Amino acid sequence: MVEVFGKVLRELRTERGISQEKLAEYCDLDRTYISLLERGQRQPTISTLFKIANALRIKPSDLVKNVERELPA
Amino acid sequence: MVEVFGKVLRELRTERGISQEKLAEYCDLDRTYISLLERGQRQPTISTLFKIANALRIKPSDLVKNVERELPA
Repeated sequence: MVEVFGKVLRELRTERGISQEKLAEYCDLDRTYISLLERGQRQPTISTLFKIANALRIKPSDLVKNVERELPA
Repeated sequence: MVEVFGKVLRELRTERGISQEKLAEYCDLDRTYISLLERGQRQPTISTLFKIANALRIKPSDLVKNVERELPA
């Protein structure tokens, strides 16, 4: 599941043409942390999830919906 | 926001007549952790969020939507 979140995060970020550096800056997070999230090696808390969603201009619930869709049924 | 998540968690759990003990058991979490979450003193990771949502028989994205609705605009 954490891998799926990382995949969805990368897709959303690259679709918006935002670099890891830029996203980290918007969220006041470290770039390496964004990279670890995208590789499924860290997982966000709910408040980090909200921060990232806001930076990507997507509702947190829609971001979670994307993760749900990509999870095996 | 973490306080709002705690409030939503308590509402959903009590609406379903599930005790903290029972929810902790369903999620393979510690009861005191559930209590800390409900009091906004801990926040869930995304995988804990999914575990709790499944135990409460609500989609994770709907649980997050409830949190969004209760956050100040």
